[in-house]
Amino acid sequence: MTAEEAFRYLQRGAIEIVPEEEFRAKLESGRRLTVKLGADPTRPDLHLGHAVVLRKMRQFQELGHKVVLIIGDFTGMIGDPSGKSKTRPPLTLEETRANAKSYVEQAGKILITEDADRFALRYNSEWLEPLSFKDVIFMASQLTVAQMLEREDFKARYQQNVPIRLHEFLYPLAQAYDSVAIGADVEMGGSDQRFNLLVGREIQRAYGQPPQVAFLMPLLVGLDGREKMSKSLDNYIGVAEPPETMFKKLMRVPDAVLPEYFELLTDLEADEVAALQEKGGPVGAHRVLARLITGAYALPRIPARIDRAFYEALGYRLEAAGGDKAPGESRYPEATRAVAEAEARYDRVARGGIPEDLPEVGIPEDALKEGRIWVARLFTLAGLTKSNAEAKRLVKDRGLRIDGEPVTDPMLEVTLDRPRVLQRGKDRFVRVRLTVSEPRTG
Amino acid sequence: MTAEEAFRYLQRGAIEIVPEEEFRAKLESGRRLTVKLGADPTRPDLHLGHAVVLRKMRQFQELGHKVVLIIGDFTGMIGDPSGKSKTRPPLTLEETRANAKSYVEQAGKILITEDADRFALRYNSEWLEPLSFKDVIFMASQLTVAQMLEREDFKARYQQNVPIRLHEFLYPLAQAYDSVAIGADVEMGGSDQRFNLLVGREIQRAYGQPPQVAFLMPLLVGLDGREKMSKSLDNYIGVAEPPETMFKKLMRVPDAVLPEYFELLTDLEADEVAALQEKGGPVGAHRVLARLITGAYALPRIPARIDRAFYEALGYRLEAAGGDKAPGESRYPEATRAVAEAEARYDRVARGGIPEDLPEVGIPEDALKEGRIWVARLFTLAGLTKSNAEAKRLVKDRGLRIDGEPVTDPMLEVTLDRPRVLQRGKDRFVRVRLTVSEPRTG
Repeated sequence: MTAEEAFRYLQRGAIEIVPEEEFRAKLESGRRLTVKLGADPTRPDLHLGHAVVLRKMRQFQELGHKVVLIIGDFTGMIGDPSGKSKTRPPLTLEETRANAKSYVEQAGKILITEDADRFALRYNSEWLEPLSFKDVIFMASQLTVAQMLEREDFKARYQQNVPIRLHEFLYPLAQAYDSVAIGADVEMGGSDQRFNLLVGREIQRAYGQPPQVAFLMPLLVGLDGREKMSKSLDNYIGVAEPPETMFKKLMRVPDAVLPEYFELLTDLEADEVAALQEKGGPVGAHRVLARLITGAYALPRIPARIDRAFYEALGYRLEAAGGDKAPGESRYPEATRAVAEAEARYDRVARGGIPEDLPEVGIPEDALKEGRIWVARLFTLAGLTKSNAEAKRLVKDRGLRIDGEPVTDPMLEVTLDRPRVLQRGKDRFVRVRLTVSEPRTG
Repeated sequence: MTAEEAFRYLQRGAIEIVPEEEFRAKLESGRRLTVKLGADPTRPDLHLGHAVVLRKMRQFQELGHKVVLIIGDFTGMIGDPSGKSKTRPPLTLEETRANAKSYVEQAGKILITEDADRFALRYNSEWLEPLSFKDVIFMASQLTVAQMLEREDFKARYQQNVPIRLHEFLYPLAQAYDSVAIGADVEMGGSDQRFNLLVGREIQRAYGQPPQVAFLMPLLVGLDGREKMSKSLDNYIGVAEPPETMFKKLMRVPDAVLPEYFELLTDLEADEVAALQEKGGPVGAHRVLARLITGAYALPRIPARIDRAFYEALGYRLEAAGGDKAPGESRYPEATRAVAEAEARYDRVARGGIPEDLPEVGIPEDALKEGRIWVARLFTLAGLTKSNAEAKRLVKDRGLRIDGEPVTDPMLEVTLDRPRVLQRGKDRFVRVRLTVSEPRTG
């Protein structure tokens, strides 16, 4: 691959590379580049939002470059130094190390982590703890207060009189010094990291280093189609979730953001995605996405490229993307089996199909009046609703079914002369059956 | 002296004591208090503006408390860490020590410096150099960005888009940590130090120390009657200036600020000052001030109280403050002699009297035309003006005299049939005398 080809390959999906010409020059140098990513040890759960950046780094690895993952344990172990907030207690050394281990395990689904030429894990306490007040003053002198207040989040907080504690202005310096410590050529981040990554350039320059290139990837929107994917908003797909969950969640991606998911999470060509959406409608495209991602993440490590070749290696044909099952032979039988099972379950649920192995609940005879029971009471006795009131509400939202049929009348009375299958939402089922009461004595 | 008497004695002249009730409590404790003053080693020249604060500290010493003078060598040795300004090069260790020595020598005219129970000199590099990044983050977390931007000078610069480099926000933390290091009970400062002194309280609290009292003295206005006294504005009276200069400058204090000078630089009672101004007019009051201060600073160390008793000890009577010479016997003969000489010289000059020992300049015959020379040319040849243009300008301002008479006509032509005394301003004199040119040959 020429430097220009490498540039085009890596540029795909990037939102911004600052500055592009320096990035080209670094690629042309033929050197093994040091590509930095900072990881927050207080949030060790990786989701597909993280995967956007990690997949790009994997591509750097495929080209022979070296990824350095920096665990920000220095600030993690400080917690909230002002002691004003109880919500962010400092991590112990053990917690930090355990979280880092978990982070690396998950990242290892995407990154090559076992080859020292292509991966290193570093803890920034190694170089930040020895820094002195004088070093901090030197770094701080490179920036102005006005610059700091131009960072979007600081600007908003300052304008809205939400206190910014002064040490928060120092954290970008810590991150920037990480770049100095490892001599970063490129720092990767989501687009919300733009400011911090550019501070890295300033600080490297101040220490006489060639400045890093800020490589910015877009933020993946969550399943709500609005907010950035995050665990706290519960709009995420975890990289380590079971295939079944992953498949189901991917089928829920809003149509409007589906092209974004393809672009950021797969390597299908834009025209292939467009054709999919045109030909098969969104459901067809959804299914291809769900198979690709579920298949990729069912492997111990995702392939470097999640593209047509990988789709076919799973045994599918891209032309038949309307929802057909895998017709061909798979080169990844385990992944294909995981996808097939997840897809089959999804289809059963989506088509109102009833799973085979249902929990059963007995309804005592005397809960019925003249052979009938109020639908709300029935769902509550079955444990699918917490109260009759909740059941009534769910009926209004068409959220309850009996034997596959939606309940529409909240005052419906049901007979139990045969077992019935109660269903809440798409995937909660219970089979109910009448139980004969013991005759009462005395 | 009771604690209440001490409070009233020390409170005199203070602009603010924050908080007053804590200060009372500290005095009531009966402990020897640690009274801190920070000194800037880059500006070792002390003037009467500094004396306002130093005199107050001397009063603490007289009551048995201990003054700790902190030389801010830590920041002095950093200079401008951004390297953006060439005007503030870092001081070497030697320069810092030399400046500190000079500072202490001058301060020793006011403070008791030789008694370890009442004075200590410390360099803040001792405790600031070992501070780590973590310590800085801890301190910074105690303050918000908004608080910093409320400091008057920062606020103005931010609003006017004059860059504030981020490290400037860290300097108040350094100063605050000085208070922690020495366990300050009281920190003294000019009113422009209010913010920094209160930051000291916050940081002491964060380290579990009882917070210091911020003891704020007014800023002495300079001889221009407008700006704070400072060397760079050339509106100052140095504590080490010769008596003659000091006396002359004190006689120039604008009437409007004379009561302020009495209040901040002497211990005369307010009614005594009022009587002086009423009875003797401003000149009488000026003369008392000039004698008091010139006399006090002519001593190796000023007295603890510069009051009526001291004035009388110099041999003057306060009632006779209209300009009479010392009639009585002096308990400080050297000081009295210094004042008397300075005053005599001042009077000679002020009354247009011409000093005895004048420099002489010869004016060559051929500089004259028909026995006369243009006044502007004459002053320039005599070296009292830089150019004819300057001389013309000074004539307009009535700034030039010949034989004690003001020159009013800028085109005046002067004869030199006898030696003339040229005078610029109040105190620059030259005697000019015609010199006969050598006959020109060839």
